[in-house]
Amino acid sequence: MSGSTSRDVATAAFLGLGAMGAPMAAHLAAARPTLVWNRTSSVAEAHAASHGSRDVPLDAIAEAEVIVSCLSRTVDVVDVARQVAGDLRPGTVWVDCTSGEPEPSRVLATRLGEHGVAYLDAPVSGGTAGAEAGTLTVMAGGDADVLERVRPVLAAFAGRIVHVGPVGAGHAVKAVNNTLLAANLWAAGEGLVALVRAGVPATTALEVINASSGRSFPTEVLIPERVVTREFPVTFTLGLLAKDVGIARGVLDAAGSPAPVLRQVAELLTVALRELGPDVDHVAALQLVERWAGSEIR
Amino acid sequence: MSGSTSRDVATAAFLGLGAMGAPMAAHLAAARPTLVWNRTSSVAEAHAASHGSRDVPLDAIAEAEVIVSCLSRTVDVVDVARQVAGDLRPGTVWVDCTSGEPEPSRVLATRLGEHGVAYLDAPVSGGTAGAEAGTLTVMAGGDADVLERVRPVLAAFAGRIVHVGPVGAGHAVKAVNNTLLAANLWAAGEGLVALVRAGVPATTALEVINASSGRSFPTEVLIPERVVTREFPVTFTLGLLAKDVGIARGVLDAAGSPAPVLRQVAELLTVALRELGPDVDHVAALQLVERWAGSEIR
Amino acid sequence: MSGSTSRDVATAAFLGLGAMGAPMAAHLAAARPTLVWNRTSSVAEAHAASHGSRDVPLDAIAEAEVIVSCLSRTVDVVDVARQVAGDLRPGTVWVDCTSGEPEPSRVLATRLGEHGVAYLDAPVSGGTAGAEAGTLTVMAGGDADVLERVRPVLAAFAGRIVHVGPVGAGHAVKAVNNTLLAANLWAAGEGLVALVRAGVPATTALEVINASSGRSFPTEVLIPERVVTREFPVTFTLGLLAKDVGIARGVLDAAGSPAPVLRQVAELLTVALRELGPDVDHVAALQLVERWAGSEIR
Amino acid sequence: MSGSTSRDVATAAFLGLGAMGAPMAAHLAAARPTLVWNRTSSVAEAHAASHGSRDVPLDAIAEAEVIVSCLSRTVDVVDVARQVAGDLRPGTVWVDCTSGEPEPSRVLATRLGEHGVAYLDAPVSGGTAGAEAGTLTVMAGGDADVLERVRPVLAAFAGRIVHVGPVGAGHAVKAVNNTLLAANLWAAGEGLVALVRAGVPATTALEVINASSGRSFPTEVLIPERVVTREFPVTFTLGLLAKDVGIARGVLDAAGSPAPVLRQVAELLTVALRELGPDVDHVAALQLVERWAGSEIR
Repeated sequence: MSGSTSRDVATAAFLGLGAMGAPMAAHLAAARPTLVWNRTSSVAEAHAASHGSRDVPLDAIAEAEVIVSCLSRTVDVVDVARQVAGDLRPGTVWVDCTSGEPEPSRVLATRLGEHGVAYLDAPVSGGTAGAEAGTLTVMAGGDADVLERVRPVLAAFAGRIVHVGPVGAGHAVKAVNNTLLAANLWAAGEGLVALVRAGVPATTALEVINASSGRSFPTEVLIPERVVTREFPVTFTLGLLAKDVGIARGVLDAAGSPAPVLRQVAELLTVALRELGPDVDHVAALQLVERWAGSEIR
Repeated sequence: MSGSTSRDVATAAFLGLGAMGAPMAAHLAAARPTLVWNRTSSVAEAHAASHGSRDVPLDAIAEAEVIVSCLSRTVDVVDVARQVAGDLRPGTVWVDCTSGEPEPSRVLATRLGEHGVAYLDAPVSGGTAGAEAGTLTVMAGGDADVLERVRPVLAAFAGRIVHVGPVGAGHAVKAVNNTLLAANLWAAGEGLVALVRAGVPATTALEVINASSGRSFPTEVLIPERVVTREFPVTFTLGLLAKDVGIARGVLDAAGSPAPVLRQVAELLTVALRELGPDVDHVAALQLVERWAGSEIR
Repeated sequence: MSGSTSRDVATAAFLGLGAMGAPMAAHLAAARPTLVWNRTSSVAEAHAASHGSRDVPLDAIAEAEVIVSCLSRTVDVVDVARQVAGDLRPGTVWVDCTSGEPEPSRVLATRLGEHGVAYLDAPVSGGTAGAEAGTLTVMAGGDADVLERVRPVLAAFAGRIVHVGPVGAGHAVKAVNNTLLAANLWAAGEGLVALVRAGVPATTALEVINASSGRSFPTEVLIPERVVTREFPVTFTLGLLAKDVGIARGVLDAAGSPAPVLRQVAELLTVALRELGPDVDHVAALQLVERWAGSEIR
Repeated sequence: MSGSTSRDVATAAFLGLGAMGAPMAAHLAAARPTLVWNRTSSVAEAHAASHGSRDVPLDAIAEAEVIVSCLSRTVDVVDVARQVAGDLRPGTVWVDCTSGEPEPSRVLATRLGEHGVAYLDAPVSGGTAGAEAGTLTVMAGGDADVLERVRPVLAAFAGRIVHVGPVGAGHAVKAVNNTLLAANLWAAGEGLVALVRAGVPATTALEVINASSGRSFPTEVLIPERVVTREFPVTFTLGLLAKDVGIARGVLDAAGSPAPVLRQVAELLTVALRELGPDVDHVAALQLVERWAGSEIR
């Protein structure tokens, strides 16, 4: 589409107006005609009223040349796709920004392909802040040429769009990224709480670690902002992180490569989910580390 | 000492002219009269010839007002201190930059204290590059006032000097920092090799991860520079990292706090040490992750 | 069939004449008319010649009232069943003694049910020795009444037949049993090698442990007979144990319950498989424990 | 001493009349003159009144030719020995039945040796039931000839006395045995709770496992008697098991051999101790496994 004025007015459809999807769809609607659909239709109506998108019933999304989905799970995408696949026109591109599962997405891609519809898995990182700023990172799996065609569409909400591999690779990278987040977070929590118990204030330890080789996104950003402050604001729930780590477990199964550290972290997150519930912020997992230690990280 | 001309010419002594110690002592010698001692005395002679320090026998270090040690292990520091403690003058400050152990350092501090000598554990981070540039981070445990007195001395080789807590706290922070490095490195290796096996080039995965929440010092610096390039230059050996992780194990024992992730990493490092030997670079631990996976991270 | 003389002469079919299947089918053939099939037909011909079974092409197994399969993997059972399902008569019972996977077995049970064929998953324990003695333990999942009907058939090779739950439960119990074997084995190896390094002969440690609370099947039988003797006879390969542990991983996924110890063991077995290959005896996994320790368990 | 009338009347002293020590000392007093001491002296008085032992102040134990200690921790033994070592006669044998630590026991042995006193570490297994029945298993470290000399004395409360190695080896074997108990218990709990969630009653799973290769002391005895029954009687507390596992951690440190499974179990026990407290029975650790799974093992 780049450089092609005719393609730049392609109609888009956006499915799933949640915390991530709503601002992504708003950016999309600011750039081109955008149909929106949501399982609870009043949400779509409100979106249309606020952002100039057009709320439609599900079967009307077949009008769009590019369909972007941002639903809870792959099973939801499969369900919606099953309902509309027969109506889609050949040449349509389905860009699935859901944080989903590689294997069933590959099955979905095959089914859509039978209708001449190309599928890209294209989960995003950057959180709700990135969605609102329109600066998300998109990690896309699937045909590279297809990605090039829709790149101008995705640019409405993305600051960086990276082709990472075949269908499923986007989901795999997202899941592994978030599992590294979980691993680095948990490791940092264990180390910091032991230092606190040795008489080192957490902020002091963080100052040194962040000037040294032990630093990571959790030590640089999450723990100073959310743990040391005792705020634990809910921006990305533990339930969602645990879902992504579960997807990564499938990536590891498929790879067949040993991953004792990541598997360990996956088990601990499952424990945290049981003990703290799914609705706390993901960083609150460290409250379990603190409880087990008998000391707070601060 | 800063602003005090009389204190600014305080004589320093530096013990241990290894890969870190030699450039640290050179910076020291550029700033004030500096005695140097090394177990192999020819090394001290060469240092004196090159850097204007003065090589002395061990018992002559008692002349110095500030003694800086940078030896292999705490047991070496204890051994040297035992030989000279009786000769040291009250008011002397012993700054131990060895990456050492908290508990025996506390015992050493008590013994030196009986001679009126103050002890600070003050391990550094920044590697040989930081030592040569004189920009090391010092993490110091012990009396805060004592640290203030010697801060101008340490400033010769340090870009940042942080008081982290009581005696032993410096060693604890250093050991935990390096264990976080090990944990973040190993976790990244497991995740990246699984992505490679899913069809994602390591450089692509790193581009996304480093723009996202999974990033850490290993993903941002070590793996791109040392693993993807297949270079694995030896700057900090696996043996030394394993030593630090062993010290962290003692910190965790003392804290009594569960640390399933860090303990797991400690075991894996021990395995890597057995399989790869102590002399490879610490980042080469990922060669074991690659061997177990049957794929290279690139 | 119990109490029914007419049912006692029911014809059986046995699919898969491997190390376990061949002696199981021989016991079956001694008790009733038994058709045998094997992917390599010469094996079935030889079995017929030796044991009075009758070798048949695959489609002829539809004559049997009870079909027993003992193949490598569930995927093989599914493949064979797909070929013959249309020919099977309603009322036929398919007893699958393969060490297989619960979830695809449930799918298979549903498909066979559409043809009026009842499916039981019925993996066995006892090894080749138990198969030859006809004293295997059968752990059966599926309809309890169906199990009662075929109990007299299975009794030909089983010393104990336990109904463990719905379809898939037999596979789950088998996989978990073998994962406990792996866990107890690996734990014992770690502990014993550390004791050897502390100056305790392995046989002495085993004498005490086997009189105490640390005992398990590996300390009582496997390690004395196979490790201390340095014999490591191949009776159940590491590859097969790793397959079963992989199935258990799916059971844990489905249960959603944290299992940090069993997951850890699963990772270590994968490492052992990479390092030692699939064809060594499962107990040879301790050779990796020994290599990592630098000492033998003896 | 057996067969030697003069040796058979050797006077013994017993230190520490707790749940294990009291019945052990009673068996001893039935066989020969026995002095008893306890930190709370009324306990010793009551023991003397009930069992024909003679309660004495600590310094009077020097009269005994064989001193048996059964205290909480090695630090307690060291403390008591420090008070009386100067009074002990050369040739005295100190048999330490405490579940203690190898390294400080070696230091203690050296100190006692300077007074001509031989030290054996001789922890026991068999629990309070074995202590009352006089059928304990003794695992003794130290000089084999010294053990032979005191064997008739220990036979009063022991069914089996095994020389396992040099001083410290007894403690090491005891600690590793109990860590294997913990590992086998936790692994069984994880596996059983997953099977329960798959629809398999725990008793059914145990029946199969105990006829198969997954069996261990916990599956054969502890879980059927204490978990499935929901009784969790307190006979050996979680706090004491955690203490022993902590000692095993030191054995592993000293061995330098990787032990990812046993280390993992040690961390989980520390978590259980935090979550359940030290006073529950050790088998109650599985209540944490159950809580994390959301299902009971029954």
